[in-house]
Amino acid sequence: MSDPVVLLTDFGSGDTYAGALIGACWRVDPTLRVVTATHGVPPGDVLAGAYHLKASALAFPRGSVFCAVVDPGVGSERRVLAVDTGEVRCVAPDNGLLSYLWSEADSTMRRCAAVAVPAGASPTFHGRDVFAPAAARLAAGADLDDIGEPGAPPMLLDVAFARRDDAALLGRVAAVDHFGNAITTVRLADLGGARLTGARWDGGGTDSVVRTYAEIGDGLAVLVGSAGHVEVAARGRPGRCLGGPEAGAAVRVLLA
Amino acid sequence: MSDPVVLLTDFGSGDTYAGALIGACWRVDPTLRVVTATHGVPPGDVLAGAYHLKASALAFPRGSVFCAVVDPGVGSERRVLAVDTGEVRCVAPDNGLLSYLWSEADSTMRRCAAVAVPAGASPTFHGRDVFAPAAARLAAGADLDDIGEPGAPPMLLDVAFARRDDAALLGRVAAVDHFGNAITTVRLADLGGARLTGARWDGGGTDSVVRTYAEIGDGLAVLVGSAGHVEVAARGRPGRCLGGPEAGAAVRVLLA
Amino acid sequence: MSDPVVLLTDFGSGDTYAGALIGACWRVDPTLRVVTATHGVPPGDVLAGAYHLKASALAFPRGSVFCAVVDPGVGSERRVLAVDTGEVRCVAPDNGLLSYLWSEADSTMRRCAAVAVPAGASPTFHGRDVFAPAAARLAAGADLDDIGEPGAPPMLLDVAFARRDDAALLGRVAAVDHFGNAITTVRLADLGGARLTGARWDGGGTDSVVRTYAEIGDGLAVLVGSAGHVEVAARGRPGRCLGGPEAGAAVRVLLA
Repeated sequence: MSDPVVLLTDFGSGDTYAGALIGACWRVDPTLRVVTATHGVPPGDVLAGAYHLKASALAFPRGSVFCAVVDPGVGSERRVLAVDTGEVRCVAPDNGLLSYLWSEADSTMRRCAAVAVPAGASPTFHGRDVFAPAAARLAAGADLDDIGEPGAPPMLLDVAFARRDDAALLGRVAAVDHFGNAITTVRLADLGGARLTGARWDGGGTDSVVRTYAEIGDGLAVLVGSAGHVEVAARGRPGRCLGGPEAGAAVRVLLA
Repeated sequence: MSDPVVLLTDFGSGDTYAGALIGACWRVDPTLRVVTATHGVPPGDVLAGAYHLKASALAFPRGSVFCAVVDPGVGSERRVLAVDTGEVRCVAPDNGLLSYLWSEADSTMRRCAAVAVPAGASPTFHGRDVFAPAAARLAAGADLDDIGEPGAPPMLLDVAFARRDDAALLGRVAAVDHFGNAITTVRLADLGGARLTGARWDGGGTDSVVRTYAEIGDGLAVLVGSAGHVEVAARGRPGRCLGGPEAGAAVRVLLA
Repeated sequence: MSDPVVLLTDFGSGDTYAGALIGACWRVDPTLRVVTATHGVPPGDVLAGAYHLKASALAFPRGSVFCAVVDPGVGSERRVLAVDTGEVRCVAPDNGLLSYLWSEADSTMRRCAAVAVPAGASPTFHGRDVFAPAAARLAAGADLDDIGEPGAPPMLLDVAFARRDDAALLGRVAAVDHFGNAITTVRLADLGGARLTGARWDGGGTDSVVRTYAEIGDGLAVLVGSAGHVEVAARGRPGRCLGGPEAGAAVRVLLA
C-alpha cells in the first residue's frame, strides 16, 4: 500500500478547488489514498498554515506526503518546494508555509528540492496542476530527486518564532481554533525549562495556568495545547468573549 | 477488507483536529478506511451530537465503527466508552452522546465497555490519543473485550426523549440543519400510532403536516424527516425566517 | 480497482446528510472509494451547482462517477437522470444541474437514462436513497442501461449560457468563490476568438485584464479562471469589498 497524500489548504470547502486536488492525484495514480487535514486555513494566512501543517504532521504516520497550499503568490516567481523531513514529506510554495515543519526537523535528515512548474499548468491553480501532481508522485514512490533539483532550504517566517525578552517570550497568535482558543507561536521547547506563569496582550492577561480545558474556571487560562504551543483558552465559549487575544495579536508569555 | 471508521465530532473543519483523527487511526493500521460523518456538530452540543450519531449510523453498513467526539469534559473524570449495538460500534465519551444509539438498539444485542486512557495521552486531545486509536483497533478486528472492561451502560440525556402530555408530545429542537429545518427530539416511534396534526412553540405554531419538502407552501409545516424525527420546515428558506423554533427551543407536537 | 464516486451537493458539512451518502454507497459495495468534490453549493442554487459540477469533472480521471445533488424539488415529479459524457458519469436531478456537463460533452458520446425511484425511498432524502445507490452501482460496474431507461436529454438552464450582444457577452455571476472571486457564466469558448477587454455590472466595472491573481493590483480585474470561465477578481481580499459583482448579478463582458 502506498503512502497517503494529505491535503492542507486555504481553499475552503464551498468550492471545488479542494476536490480538484483529489482528482489531480488520481490522474497520477488512481490507487492513491488522498485525505484532508484541513481546507480551512484563513485565506492567504501563511503563518496559520505553517502551524496547522506542523500540527497535522505530528498526527500522521511516517512517510505521509502533505500537499500544502496557502499560496497568495500563485503566478509570481516564488519557488515550488518538495521537502523530506525524515518523518513526512511535503510539497508547498516557498513562502514560509514550511517554517515549523522544516526548522523542527532533524537537520541531518531533512532535504529540499525545487520542483519545476509544468508547461500548461493553469496560471491561477497551481494546487491542481503543480502541487498535487508532485505530491502524488512522491506518494506513488518517487524520490525527491525524481521530482526536483536539490535547492536552497525553504524561507522561514520570522514571525513564526518567539523572541526571549527577560522573563518572557514574545510571540503572537498564529491561529484561533474552532472552539475560540488562541494558539500562539510560543512553543513548549522555547520555554527552555522555565515554568509558564501567565500571559499578557494588548488589553488583557491571565495568571491562570492549567493542564486541561476542564480545569479552566470562568475566566481565561493558558495551557500547552496538543501540538506543543502555548494557547489562551476559555471553557465552553470562545476566549475572545472574555477579552482574549485575536488572531495575529502580540502575546507576552510570562515565565518563572 | 476491514470495517470503516466513521468520524463524528464538533471539531469543525477549520483546524487540523479532525484530520488528526485520520492520522491517529492510520498509526494503528494504515490500511483502514476512515471517513467523515460530520465535524459540524455545534461545539459542545451533546444533544445535537446524539441525534447526528443516530442519523449517521442509520446510513452506514453493519459493522461500521463510529468515533464520536463531542466532549466538553475532556480532562475530567467522564468515562470513555466503546459500545456495540449489534449493528454498528462506537467509541464515545460517556456524557449522553450515545443516548439514541444505545437506547434504540436491541437490548439483547448491545454491549458496553469502558476504555482506559493510555498513559501519555494529551490531556487536551483525547480524540487523537484515546477515541480514534480505540475505534481503529475495533475496525482492525479487535473485540470490545480487547479494548476495555465490560461496564455500566452509557448515561442517557433526559432531554433527548420526548414526554407525553395529553394529546401532545413535549420535546425540543435537537438540531437545526443546513437548510434551516428544526429537527426535534420527537420520534415517529414516540407517536404510538397517533396521527401528527401540528406543532406549537414559544411564539409560533403550524397545523400544516406534509410528507415532502416539495409539498410545503409559503409557510411552515411539520414532517417526519429521513431519520424518523419530527421536524419543522419551510421551503426554499430557513424556517426561522418564518418564526420557526430555534435550536434548543421547546416544541409541543400535536397528535390526533 | 473500481471507479470512484465523487459527491457534489448543497448539503453543507454541519449535518450528517453528506456522510450518509458515503454509507449509502457502501451499502451497495463496501469496496467503493467515495470522495467529496464539495458539499458547499449554496442551498438550492442549481446554477452554481452546474458550474461546480463541470469544474470538478475537469479535474477527475475518466470514468469517475459523480453523485450530484442540488435538488430543491425533492419529492416532486422531476426526473432522476444518469448520464455518461464519454469522460465521466453522473447521477443528478433533471433540473438544470447537468447544464454544462451535458452541453459541453461530445454529442456523439453522451448518453442519458432515467432512473426509477425505488419503493421505500425516503420522500425527503433522495440523495441517500436514490442518487447515491445509483451512482454506486455505476461505479461498481453497472452500465447506464442497467440502472435506467434511455430517455430525453437533461433540461438545460437558459441562464447558464451567455448571450452575444454586439461586442460583448451578457452573462451573470454563477458562483462567488471562497476568495471572493465572482465566476461568471461567460466561457473562454464563448469569446469565439475575440479578446477580453473588461467587464461591466450594475454599479461597477473594470478594464484591467490579467492572466494571474499575482498580476492584479489594488483594484478589480478580469481573468479566465481554472475551469475556463471569466471571473472578476481582486487580490488579497474579496472583490465585493471593491464594488465587484455579487452572486447572481448580470455581468457584461467586453470584447475587442
